[in-house]
Amino acid sequence: MDQKIEVPTTLYLEDLYVHQRFTSGLYHMEEDRIKAFAAEFDPQPFHLDEAAAQRSVFHGLAASGWHTAAVTMRLLVGSLPFASGMIGLGGEIAWPKPTRPGDELHVESEILEIVASRSKPNQGVVIVRCITLNQKGDHVQAFTAKILVFKRPGDPNNAVLKPSAS
Amino acid sequence: MDQKIEVPTTLYLEDLYVHQRFTSGLYHMEEDRIKAFAAEFDPQPFHLDEAAAQRSVFHGLAASGWHTAAVTMRLLVGSLPFASGMIGLGGEIAWPKPTRPGDELHVESEILEIVASRSKPNQGVVIVRCITLNQKGDHVQAFTAKILVFKRPGDPNNAVLKPSAS
Repeated sequence: MDQKIEVPTTLYLEDLYVHQRFTSGLYHMEEDRIKAFAAEFDPQPFHLDEAAAQRSVFHGLAASGWHTAAVTMRLLVGSLPFASGMIGLGGEIAWPKPTRPGDELHVESEILEIVASRSKPNQGVVIVRCITLNQKGDHVQAFTAKILVFKRPGDPNNAVLKPSAS
Repeated sequence: MDQKIEVPTTLYLEDLYVHQRFTSGLYHMEEDRIKAFAAEFDPQPFHLDEAAAQRSVFHGLAASGWHTAAVTMRLLVGSLPFASGMIGLGGEIAWPKPTRPGDELHVESEILEIVASRSKPNQGVVIVRCITLNQKGDHVQAFTAKILVFKRPGDPNNAVLKPSAS
């Protein structure tokens, strides 16, 4: 229902720590948008047509995994308040269950690791596990993301990363 | 320019082999669509506004990585002609360079591995490396995908996978 993104507090690399957790708002998956996204980017019968989807391995209309991924990004932008934005370098993605029309999705994220940059002392890479859940608690996507994060500006001596804090 | 998808020949699991390659058609990245996709799914300044993007690590307007991923899927649907469709279980994704307005993307795919299902003799998982390139040959996305593929129906005795063929 609530597609609004809250304005978050801004976090720099120094503010992050392993096991830090973030929870997103909600995103409602509408059938029309599922079909329109699929028509543009993933035009396969099980994403476009209910009858065809019933006969497929999905046993009913399912959103494209890339639609689930895009919605997850929307929720992450509102819930991982990194100062320079969510600059994703990539990661490992999986869709254990399909997203369905009417699903209410949210994302629970946890920092797994913080890796200092050797060449660029003002930045680092944060490994974050982002689980996308539906209203029943099913995991519809697991994404372990590598995200570029910057240090607070104007602190040139702060060249050593804190490995953890709390 | 050419957003059309060619109708492919249908391939079953028995038709696939390691090192088999597929090349997609072209997809033109339009600035308006880059901004609209970002406004819906990845509302960050460097995907929405040229001036803000110039000041960011991207040094110019860049498409959301998830837009590049969605376009890659569109190109894969037209170029990996698996009989039951492109049913992706997940994979490893990376964006070595940003996608820019005006880019002409295509995808080059290669089968790396074919894994038989132990529990379901009529299906298997195919590992495919899908590289998305721009008109200069830069790699804008690397996706190593796990794709569910079915065997040809009506051949119940064909329970052993060919590891390779050509």
